[in-house]
Amino acid sequence: MLKFDKQKLVENMQGALELRAEINNFIDQIDKRGYSNVCWLGIGGTYASAMQANVHMQEKSAIDQFYENAAIYLTTGNKRITKDSLVVISSVSGNTEEVVEAVRKAKDAGATVLGFIDNKKAELAGMVDCVISYPTDEQLKFFMVGDRLMYLNGEFPEYDEFYKQMDEHFAKDIADVEEKSDQFAAEFAEKHHDDDIHYFVGAGNQWGATYSYAMCYWEEQHWLKTRAIEAPEFFHGMFEIVTRDTPVTVYVGEDSQRSLSERVANFLPQICGNYTIIDTKDYDLPGFDDKFRGTLSPFVFHAINNRIDAHIEHINRHPMDIRRYYRQLKY
Amino acid sequence: MLKFDKQKLVENMQGALELRAEINNFIDQIDKRGYSNVCWLGIGGTYASAMQANVHMQEKSAIDQFYENAAIYLTTGNKRITKDSLVVISSVSGNTEEVVEAVRKAKDAGATVLGFIDNKKAELAGMVDCVISYPTDEQLKFFMVGDRLMYLNGEFPEYDEFYKQMDEHFAKDIADVEEKSDQFAAEFAEKHHDDDIHYFVGAGNQWGATYSYAMCYWEEQHWLKTRAIEAPEFFHGMFEIVTRDTPVTVYVGEDSQRSLSERVANFLPQICGNYTIIDTKDYDLPGFDDKFRGTLSPFVFHAINNRIDAHIEHINRHPMDIRRYYRQLKY
Repeated sequence: MLKFDKQKLVENMQGALELRAEINNFIDQIDKRGYSNVCWLGIGGTYASAMQANVHMQEKSAIDQFYENAAIYLTTGNKRITKDSLVVISSVSGNTEEVVEAVRKAKDAGATVLGFIDNKKAELAGMVDCVISYPTDEQLKFFMVGDRLMYLNGEFPEYDEFYKQMDEHFAKDIADVEEKSDQFAAEFAEKHHDDDIHYFVGAGNQWGATYSYAMCYWEEQHWLKTRAIEAPEFFHGMFEIVTRDTPVTVYVGEDSQRSLSERVANFLPQICGNYTIIDTKDYDLPGFDDKFRGTLSPFVFHAINNRIDAHIEHINRHPMDIRRYYRQLKY
Repeated sequence: MLKFDKQKLVENMQGALELRAEINNFIDQIDKRGYSNVCWLGIGGTYASAMQANVHMQEKSAIDQFYENAAIYLTTGNKRITKDSLVVISSVSGNTEEVVEAVRKAKDAGATVLGFIDNKKAELAGMVDCVISYPTDEQLKFFMVGDRLMYLNGEFPEYDEFYKQMDEHFAKDIADVEEKSDQFAAEFAEKHHDDDIHYFVGAGNQWGATYSYAMCYWEEQHWLKTRAIEAPEFFHGMFEIVTRDTPVTVYVGEDSQRSLSERVANFLPQICGNYTIIDTKDYDLPGFDDKFRGTLSPFVFHAINNRIDAHIEHINRHPMDIRRYYRQLKY
C-alpha cells in the first residue's frame, strides 16, 4: 500500500490515547475550580476541529461551549471569553500568527488556556496554562477533552466503558479501515483526481472535517477546486447546480445527524450520475459497542480520506507538501 | 434601469423601519421578564441572516446569543434552548418544513419565539409567541431586534441617535446605492455571468450575506457555481487554488472585521488578475455618522448585489424564479 506504515499509524493513535491521563489531570482541576464556558478556538484546520468538538458536545451536553475563529476573536472580540472561560487550542507549529495573538488576548481576558502544541519550544507553549505536546490526532485530543468535561458534568456515564474500548480497539480498528478502504480510495482517486470542482457534503461531527478536508487537503494540498456544504443546507440553494455529471461525495456517519446526510444520499441518484456515498456503516469496528459508533465516524472517514489522498497525490504527481503561497509569501 | 422601482424600494425599507414599534413592544416585555439567552434560528438564507445578527451583536454585547441551524436543532438538539430562551426566526412562506418543526421543538422546550412570518395565514404564524408580518428586509428586522436587546442591556447608548438617522436617511441612501452602483454592476455581470466558478470572500456582518449570496442567488437562482469563504480562512488553505484567471470578489465592509477583508484585498493582486473589490467606503451614506457605517455595510452590499443580479438575469436570459429541484421534487 502506498504511503502506509501500519505499525507507525497504530503507535501514533495509541500514543495519542495515552495523553488522556495528562488531559484528565488538567481538566479535573478546571472542573473542580469551576468554569463558566468552554471555547474551542482555531483557524483553518484547527477551526474545523473546533466545529467538530462543538457538535460532539452539543449532542449530550448542556455545558455552555462554543467555537471561535482566532482572527474573528482578534477583531470583533468575544465578551463571553472571560476569566472563567476555558479556551482550548491546537497548533502544530506553535507559531500560527492569529492563534498566538488570540491566546495572548484570551490570557489578557484572564481565561485559562489548554494548548495542544506539537512544538514545545514555540513561544505559544510558554503562554498557555497547560501544554500537551504530541503530534497528530488533533480531533481525538479535542474529543478526549470534551468527553472528560461531560463526564465530570454527569453527562457521559459511559465514559469508562467507552475509553476502555478506545484503549483496546481504536488504533487497530482505524488502521484496519485504512487497509480495507484502500481499493475504494484508489478507484475514487482515479475517477476524481482531475475534477473541475468536487462537492463534499457532510453533517454533524463530520461537518468540520468535511469543511477542512475540502479546504486543507484538496484545495491546499492537491490544488483541486472544491465546495463543502452542510447536508441540511444542500437543499436550500446549492443543489440547483448539481446535474448529471457534477461530482458529489456525501459522508454518511452514524452520529445524531445521520438522517441529514442520508437525505442527500437518497435524493442524489435522481439528479446526479456522478455521486459517491461514503457510509461508516460499511466498516466494522470490532470491540466497540454500536452506541459509540457515532463518535467514531469522523475517525473512520479520516482514515478513508487518508487513502484517497495517497492515491491522488501519486496520480497527480503533486507532492502534498508543496505550497504556492502559504508561508511562502507575505500577506 | 433594469428591474428598478425606486419609489417602491424606498417604501419597502421605510415600512420595515416602521416595524420597530411593534418589535420594541415585544422585546421590551421579554427584557422585563428576563431571558437567559437568544437563539437566531434558521436554515438556508435565514440561517445566513442568523449568522449576521450573531456577529452584529458580538461586536458590542455580552448577551449570551448564538445561531442555530433548524435541521441541526431537530437532530442533534440544543440543550441551551430552554424555557428562558428567546428564539428569533424568519420565514417568507411560513411553511419551510425544518423551521416549522424546529419552532415546534423550541416551543416544547418552553422557549419564547418571535417570528417574522410574511404569510400570516401559515400554521407557523399561529405557533409563535409574537408574529410580525411584513415582506422583505429580513436582515433589518433581525438587526432591529438585536439593537433593542443591546439597548435595554445598556450596551448600545447611541440607539436613539442611530434610529433617528435610520428613519430619516436609510431607505433613500440605500436606494441611491442601487442607482449609483448600477453601472459597476452591469460591467461586473458582463464579465462574470458565465464564470466556471466564482469565489466570494466576506467577513464580519457580511459573512452570512456572502454565504447566502453565493448559495441562494448564484447557485440557486442563476445556476452558477460559487464558493464563499470567510476572509480569515482564505489564507488557511483556499487561496492555494487561486491563480491568474480565478474570479474572486471581496466584500470590504466597515465593521469590526474590515481588516480581515482588507488583508485579502491587499494580497490578491499579487496572485490574481481577475479580482473585484467591493468596498462600502466608495458609497456615500449622507445623514449618517461614520460610527454607524459598519452596521450599514451589509445593506450597501445587498443593494449592489441586487443590481448585479438584475444584469446577470438579463444577460443569461435565466429568470431568477426558476428552480430545477427546490419545491419541485420530493426530497
